[in-house]
Amino acid sequence: MTTQTIFEQIQLKKSFLCLGLDPDLDKIPSHLVASSEEPLFDFCKAIVDNVHHLCVSVKINTAFFEAYGVAGFATLNKLADYIKSHYPELFLIADAKRGDIGNTSLRYAKAFFEAMPFDAITIAPYMGKDSVEPFLTYQDKHAILLALTSNEGAADFQLKANDKEVLYKQVLKQSQNWNNASQLMYVVGATKAEHLSEIRKLVPESFLLVPGVGAQGGSLEDVYTHGANENIGLLVNSSRGILYAGSGEDFAESALEAANVLQQQMENLLRA
Amino acid sequence: MTTQTIFEQIQLKKSFLCLGLDPDLDKIPSHLVASSEEPLFDFCKAIVDNVHHLCVSVKINTAFFEAYGVAGFATLNKLADYIKSHYPELFLIADAKRGDIGNTSLRYAKAFFEAMPFDAITIAPYMGKDSVEPFLTYQDKHAILLALTSNEGAADFQLKANDKEVLYKQVLKQSQNWNNASQLMYVVGATKAEHLSEIRKLVPESFLLVPGVGAQGGSLEDVYTHGANENIGLLVNSSRGILYAGSGEDFAESALEAANVLQQQMENLLRA
Repeated sequence: MTTQTIFEQIQLKKSFLCLGLDPDLDKIPSHLVASSEEPLFDFCKAIVDNVHHLCVSVKINTAFFEAYGVAGFATLNKLADYIKSHYPELFLIADAKRGDIGNTSLRYAKAFFEAMPFDAITIAPYMGKDSVEPFLTYQDKHAILLALTSNEGAADFQLKANDKEVLYKQVLKQSQNWNNASQLMYVVGATKAEHLSEIRKLVPESFLLVPGVGAQGGSLEDVYTHGANENIGLLVNSSRGILYAGSGEDFAESALEAANVLQQQMENLLRA
Repeated sequence: MTTQTIFEQIQLKKSFLCLGLDPDLDKIPSHLVASSEEPLFDFCKAIVDNVHHLCVSVKINTAFFEAYGVAGFATLNKLADYIKSHYPELFLIADAKRGDIGNTSLRYAKAFFEAMPFDAITIAPYMGKDSVEPFLTYQDKHAILLALTSNEGAADFQLKANDKEVLYKQVLKQSQNWNNASQLMYVVGATKAEHLSEIRKLVPESFLLVPGVGAQGGSLEDVYTHGANENIGLLVNSSRGILYAGSGEDFAESALEAANVLQQQMENLLRA
């Protein structure tokens, strides 16, 4: 999917919401766990079916499926196939944090872009250029580089000065010179909104995937004010705030309401 | 598995060889691809059965299985189970380069330490302390942090000065203060052997996983001279040099010969 298509979807849906799927058997409604043979799939399917029209992107956190072994991995594949075949307009992200030497990264690209139908995958930049470029050899597919993450540990290395510049800025700057850099996006935590204006100077055109609004305390308005560009350029993720809005039989309606609130806030920001 | 057990195995087998399993359908013997229903499994099983007595560790590169979708992931699980049940003395590493915010890293730990029987997993340190510590809450399990990797891209960030110190040294130093740091190991590429003496000053006790001998051009002798500590503290990986030593019906015997050469070199170094 091209970034132009994502922008068109944002305009159409008046939303730059990314729905994050991190399903946790301990948190999903107990009636579903008790009655379903595939509770992870059925839970995520119900949520996506109910909120797909309010979001432009879906981000699947692969760890929450891998934790359940082969059956979990099969569910991950089934879910990705379901979403892409029913809602091809959704930008489908594998939040997988992969990245390795070139010939290994090529295998991960094959896994997520060929064996599975993802449009993008999140990548840790630690191993540098040749660990990322293999993902960018796929037309209209995207690598979303970790830049400044939302967690506490972001302070350990990302915010440390590197050649007189903090590491995450080096990542932004340098990666812009890599082959097919126009297919790069970046993860920037909403809890780090004060850095967004600086980040926009370094990567004015790129889409930013922004987790951390909601449960982690980031502000949607701050993110939009400092992070939006002329194509909006933002995919703001919400996971727990939507997934676990309700815990009863009507969990999917509760999710719809929670997503509706976010979409309305986004529509107001887009209009302003 | 404790590091003491690994040291005992090194003494017993007179080897600090880690066998790397990165099986590639384009490179494994064509008769196997033609005749086997599970060529990846059968190929790896034959190699492990033939060389297990010459190595103390096996490292499975998960990307080479994930590339084949659900069937590939099932083979990864089956292979890990096979190795751990038949050769429990081998230190079994998932070369998976995972790492995410805390509650996600916990899921990856569950995937590799509970759903699968790995003793260790490789981790990218970019997201800092809270992305790594969840892996260290498992007794006698290990996180192997990327420090200085063997690829060209290592120069992009790892070797950049960070607060007047190169990034990989910050990773080594800071991680030593994390909870259960005694369960940390580090990836240091053999192609960077000139850094090993410095690295040993920062992490004198830790095991180092060293890829890059052989195909990538690193020298075993340099690695040993600059990297060994009193418990040896090295797991030197060889993948392609052993896996693809032969391409005919006798590929497993060719692998045995290649592993034998490496084990002999290691025995000589250990004796000297």
